[in-house]
Amino acid sequence: MENIFTDEYFMKKALLEAEIAFEKGEIPVGAVIVVDNKIIARTHNLTELLHDVTAHAEMQAITSAANYLGAKYLKDCTLYVTLEPCQMCAGALYWSQISKIVYGASDENRGFVKMRTQLHPKTAIVSGVLEKECALLMRAFFRLKR
Amino acid sequence: MENIFTDEYFMKKALLEAEIAFEKGEIPVGAVIVVDNKIIARTHNLTELLHDVTAHAEMQAITSAANYLGAKYLKDCTLYVTLEPCQMCAGALYWSQISKIVYGASDENRGFVKMRTQLHPKTAIVSGVLEKECALLMRAFFRLKR
Repeated sequence: MENIFTDEYFMKKALLEAEIAFEKGEIPVGAVIVVDNKIIARTHNLTELLHDVTAHAEMQAITSAANYLGAKYLKDCTLYVTLEPCQMCAGALYWSQISKIVYGASDENRGFVKMRTQLHPKTAIVSGVLEKECALLMRAFFRLKR
Repeated sequence: MENIFTDEYFMKKALLEAEIAFEKGEIPVGAVIVVDNKIIARTHNLTELLHDVTAHAEMQAITSAANYLGAKYLKDCTLYVTLEPCQMCAGALYWSQISKIVYGASDENRGFVKMRTQLHPKTAIVSGVLEKECALLMRAFFRLKR
């Protein structure tokens, strides 16, 4: 049987979350956290609505997944996020010891790669999954805002 | 009239929060955020109780102060925190554009200085305020845990 649970499959779920953010007037970033092919957190950026800079999709996803698991370390979990995490989110992911991070579009200005934020040695990174779709949504948003 | 509202005055309030964390079995870090000599957020580390790596004192203080102000940028605010912020917290403080950060003890392993986390150019930094008291509380905690 073919495996439908690919990185693209889950990134599409994160993109659906990003689209909800877009519709709310938020910078369109969405995330899901997956364990054993099951989505245990679905979140999108809410910094404007909550007027809270800590309300990035990833931060909410970490809290939500930890609540679900009843544990602070996100062992065997994968985060799918449409945009490369920033310093804050990468710093939180460091503490979570999450097993894998998959992101779509790169953030060449404020992403963790440029900022050299340290991730946990236990964490594998995959980038560029549905990159075009993720980046398109961001560009469409900023075009509207200008 | 003498000004009682010194950095030491507010760091003592942050230390009181750190002591509450200690009593709860949490790594003893406390924080307050001050605007116009008024404390608008008082928080302490709750990562164990909430089993949530994002529940550092500073993260909660940022959210709490933003709620109080009804605004996501912490203009004219000062954060007092007993321990040097980590990557995650420094990354959140970057987004908040907070005016000033005052910390007590340094964290030479995981603090933002060692990790080279970027703060906002608008943010002034003061370190070493009540450093001995802040560091003593941390040492006492880890001695108990061993």
